[in-house]
Amino acid sequence: MLSHEKNAILTQSGPDRPLGKFLRSFWTPAMTAAEVPAADEPPVRLQLLNENLVVFRDSEGRVGVLEEHCPHRGASLFFGRNEEGGIRCVYHGWKFDVTGACMEMPTEPSTSRMRHNVKARSYPARIAGKLLWVYMGEGAAPELPAFEFIGLPGESIYASRWHQECNYAQAMEGELDSAHVGFLHRMVSKIDADHQALTGKYFQEDTAPSWKLLSTEAGFMACNGRRVDGDKRYWRLNQFLLPFYTMIPPRPGDAQLVRMWIPMTDERCWVICVTWRPEAPLGEQELAAWRNGENSHRRVIPGTTTPMERKDNDYLIDRQLQKTVSFTGIHGVRAQDAMVTESAGPIADRSREHLGSSDTAVVAMRRTIIEAASACAASGQAPAAVAKPWLYNVHATQAVLPEGMAPEAADEIIQTARARAPQQENA
Amino acid sequence: MLSHEKNAILTQSGPDRPLGKFLRSFWTPAMTAAEVPAADEPPVRLQLLNENLVVFRDSEGRVGVLEEHCPHRGASLFFGRNEEGGIRCVYHGWKFDVTGACMEMPTEPSTSRMRHNVKARSYPARIAGKLLWVYMGEGAAPELPAFEFIGLPGESIYASRWHQECNYAQAMEGELDSAHVGFLHRMVSKIDADHQALTGKYFQEDTAPSWKLLSTEAGFMACNGRRVDGDKRYWRLNQFLLPFYTMIPPRPGDAQLVRMWIPMTDERCWVICVTWRPEAPLGEQELAAWRNGENSHRRVIPGTTTPMERKDNDYLIDRQLQKTVSFTGIHGVRAQDAMVTESAGPIADRSREHLGSSDTAVVAMRRTIIEAASACAASGQAPAAVAKPWLYNVHATQAVLPEGMAPEAADEIIQTARARAPQQENA
Amino acid sequence: MLSHEKNAILTQSGPDRPLGKFLRSFWTPAMTAAEVPAADEPPVRLQLLNENLVVFRDSEGRVGVLEEHCPHRGASLFFGRNEEGGIRCVYHGWKFDVTGACMEMPTEPSTSRMRHNVKARSYPARIAGKLLWVYMGEGAAPELPAFEFIGLPGESIYASRWHQECNYAQAMEGELDSAHVGFLHRMVSKIDADHQALTGKYFQEDTAPSWKLLSTEAGFMACNGRRVDGDKRYWRLNQFLLPFYTMIPPRPGDAQLVRMWIPMTDERCWVICVTWRPEAPLGEQELAAWRNGENSHRRVIPGTTTPMERKDNDYLIDRQLQKTVSFTGIHGVRAQDAMVTESAGPIADRSREHLGSSDTAVVAMRRTIIEAASACAASGQAPAAVAKPWLYNVHATQAVLPEGMAPEAADEIIQTARARAPQQENA
Repeated sequence: MLSHEKNAILTQSGPDRPLGKFLRSFWTPAMTAAEVPAADEPPVRLQLLNENLVVFRDSEGRVGVLEEHCPHRGASLFFGRNEEGGIRCVYHGWKFDVTGACMEMPTEPSTSRMRHNVKARSYPARIAGKLLWVYMGEGAAPELPAFEFIGLPGESIYASRWHQECNYAQAMEGELDSAHVGFLHRMVSKIDADHQALTGKYFQEDTAPSWKLLSTEAGFMACNGRRVDGDKRYWRLNQFLLPFYTMIPPRPGDAQLVRMWIPMTDERCWVICVTWRPEAPLGEQELAAWRNGENSHRRVIPGTTTPMERKDNDYLIDRQLQKTVSFTGIHGVRAQDAMVTESAGPIADRSREHLGSSDTAVVAMRRTIIEAASACAASGQAPAAVAKPWLYNVHATQAVLPEGMAPEAADEIIQTARARAPQQENA
Repeated sequence: MLSHEKNAILTQSGPDRPLGKFLRSFWTPAMTAAEVPAADEPPVRLQLLNENLVVFRDSEGRVGVLEEHCPHRGASLFFGRNEEGGIRCVYHGWKFDVTGACMEMPTEPSTSRMRHNVKARSYPARIAGKLLWVYMGEGAAPELPAFEFIGLPGESIYASRWHQECNYAQAMEGELDSAHVGFLHRMVSKIDADHQALTGKYFQEDTAPSWKLLSTEAGFMACNGRRVDGDKRYWRLNQFLLPFYTMIPPRPGDAQLVRMWIPMTDERCWVICVTWRPEAPLGEQELAAWRNGENSHRRVIPGTTTPMERKDNDYLIDRQLQKTVSFTGIHGVRAQDAMVTESAGPIADRSREHLGSSDTAVVAMRRTIIEAASACAASGQAPAAVAKPWLYNVHATQAVLPEGMAPEAADEIIQTARARAPQQENA
Repeated sequence: MLSHEKNAILTQSGPDRPLGKFLRSFWTPAMTAAEVPAADEPPVRLQLLNENLVVFRDSEGRVGVLEEHCPHRGASLFFGRNEEGGIRCVYHGWKFDVTGACMEMPTEPSTSRMRHNVKARSYPARIAGKLLWVYMGEGAAPELPAFEFIGLPGESIYASRWHQECNYAQAMEGELDSAHVGFLHRMVSKIDADHQALTGKYFQEDTAPSWKLLSTEAGFMACNGRRVDGDKRYWRLNQFLLPFYTMIPPRPGDAQLVRMWIPMTDERCWVICVTWRPEAPLGEQELAAWRNGENSHRRVIPGTTTPMERKDNDYLIDRQLQKTVSFTGIHGVRAQDAMVTESAGPIADRSREHLGSSDTAVVAMRRTIIEAASACAASGQAPAAVAKPWLYNVHATQAVLPEGMAPEAADEIIQTARARAPQQENA
């Protein structure tokens, strides 16, 4: 459980909140690159960390991320004209470039210097790894986190975005919480269960995983082990990376993945999922399954970020299917996650919880964020991980080890999961 | 009129409010038995006294009423699996029986004692008189109120439930307030007026009834008398029974009825109506009229508790009908009541009222509830009526008496209306 | 920019606010006469200055404007019966005349005097100039403002009403702010630009008008001048008349117009537009253009005051049209105005603005209202303009003058724009 005070630190991301300051010291993933308008095309809206923004691409293809409201009298730049190097507010023709500088203020006399004193709030933006990244903090932007997928060819990456009707931390809890996999995502019918390794026999053999948390400079690795095959232990190593990234191990042969849980408001979040293959293009079959929301990604109403299965339609739960086929009767692993996390309310009252050993990683994530946010707000210093982008070049992984062997002692686990500093690579 | 303070006592039913404590010392009628799921069928949601609950029936047919949110991390048990003796949260497979005891906590090690320390909030429930009753109070549940219809054969009882968009007390006022009958429910066309005794000539002959309140141990009997047929007085005796029951006298030959006005939130209430015949099955014709919302009951969108005629569609008022047929142009006596009570707002501002003699029973009801709730909250003692279920075995009734004769002096009135303690029956 | 305190004075119109008291010392235009029900027809709802009202016409054709809620127990008089000289609440048959006097209280004994002590809150109402006017202030109502269109024959006046999703002051700013015309309403395609004088070449020749404010007893005349045709200045004189009237000069040959920006709640306003020809009937072509929302008026969903192009449908913006035909891609000059004013939020945060010379009239309007409202609230005195209805008999106008000539020195401007006191006319 968590006091109301600590819950507020964990969940409130406005610019004047400890978490808000903390999050703003990192780059924030904001949308997929495919959602960013083309050069000179109309802007799109973006709500991020409790701020209302517009995103556009100028005539030279540079991406601009500006506060939605014109600094003049607040008209929305969403309705603006994106033309000839900047976005123009249609109210009075004030025009801003991607840095927020006022290029023209045609309603003032030509002798006026006023335009030099007015700036639209703007944030640096980059496109990398098929995502748009925004830096909403003070000072110079750091390097982007060096996720493995950044830099891969396009055909090796698939990224999608949807929104979820609850606080980002609550949504993310559903990912760190490995113990739920054996229930929420279980197939009830024997045939399906056999075919789905993710929800397959290891998760049924031992439903109460043991935990081992390994701290990293960017968060922690949450190892959860299940007693299987008599005398072995099936270890899964999940990654939690500040401020809101999670990785869970893919099934053997499957693509790598990271999910990003980004505050939109305090009661809503974006989820961005990237799946990638480090050494090959993605396959048609896996792409089709992702687009259809079967796993990893979620299916949405085309052209929107609104999931098909969602809170206000009870996730299209099929009670007959729930009896005979899947544990929930809800289509898609991610929709199942959304159902349990959203149904606790927009911001869960964590003072009423009863936490057990299965919540080990959830508790660690909360503590890590609360401590890091509090420290950042108190010191005004960016967290150490911000300056070490290579910390993000990691994988989640899994292995079956002899019972008694610590996961961190297994090369096959640690080689894959541990980040390497550039100097180490050169050594 | 009522001060803001007293209005708050009258209207706020959360668990920490005086009224909330008071209401929780009684059994609360919650839904019709027909709405309770069958054994092992999916649970349904129930909002009651500002709490969110789920209702299910376990494999043995026992009814469970649990807080909607799992005590673990708050996922909704509405999406749970109702199977093999309890409801299982699909997030982590925690399973609860109808008493809220945790039967399984499979994500904890088999040696863990944790499940014995976690309980889902649960409330005792009973099905009686075609209704589901829930006891939301402390300590052992009392006996159910001994309404006459409880124990009758099913074919003699008809129960329905709908919701109303205002506070329970405001909704109930429309029932105790006999004086409105001659107006709100009046038929304008002469032919219809002659055919409808309820809205018939007695209500037109004298529109300003006199009042006589007779206290009972469970509330009061509100007698209202109209000067009719020259030198007689038509007395109607309505029952008000704590905490929120009302009975109005049926027309001669018609079924008995009780209406129950149950807080859902402070700005919404359930209405449950039971009509019954003590000595015979109900007739097809009266059943059809009830289902169609002509009187006593209200017509709803099939499969829901949402009335067809309601606030957000202006009760489908037909202004032409209002000119020529009925006083309101609105279909159904209960929809007419809902219109006047809901249109005063979700919680009426009673500091701005102008009350007259016609409001005698309304004033008495408010005072009775406010005093009883305040006393209950101050003393922590359940009201006396809770321990005397026989107080609820009463009828509303009516008679035409010689002018000057007190209604309580008339055997035909008092014999029907007065509750009898068991020892009196045995005497 | 404006402090939060001053913004509150400018924007909050409830009866206990400085602005609320101030506005209530004037007649308030409330709806078009065409929207007022006929004698004995059902009442209609009206929200005005944060009050909920009903409007009806009694059997003799007198208009009644009463508080929506019955003074008895608050049932809505909207559902009432309008018959035989008054409106009757259908709950208990209490009946009120257009002055709010209780004509009948049939649920009280015939000897009761109670009805003489109960009054429905009522406001004097008049129909003039095809509008309904309501006086919501204390004491005797003043004379109606003597707008020129009041008293003209019906065929010379066209009035319409719609609602807007922001505070009245913000909506009105879009009208006083002449500088925006050259942008917001600009035609992008050359052909259209040449044909539309309003958005024509003078607005393109000089986009940074100079300003000259001329105080009047009822507000001010805002003259804005553009350098045109080499050595001339195109002056437009807009009228601002307390408390919320604006006039902009019609194109030569076009009808006169006034717009009225009336608080509904603090976050919504009515807009009433009247166009008229002092000396001739209106033409079919201009009427068609007004009904279609091309200019001056706004097109609405038939039978409602809801605009077709509105906030929740992004004003049906057509991005292709925005590239090739009009500056906004939005149909109708008034919808374009609504888009920019509404998109700043229901009540703009004026502490974050950056005002320039183009905002001269906007700033003056705010200051004038804030000062007048504060003075009225402090003194309890009605503003001077209330007692001088002739101040409203003015026009907005325009002229091309030699550069250097002050607009107030030009007869052609001042003759048209200046109000004349009755004694002056007689002199």
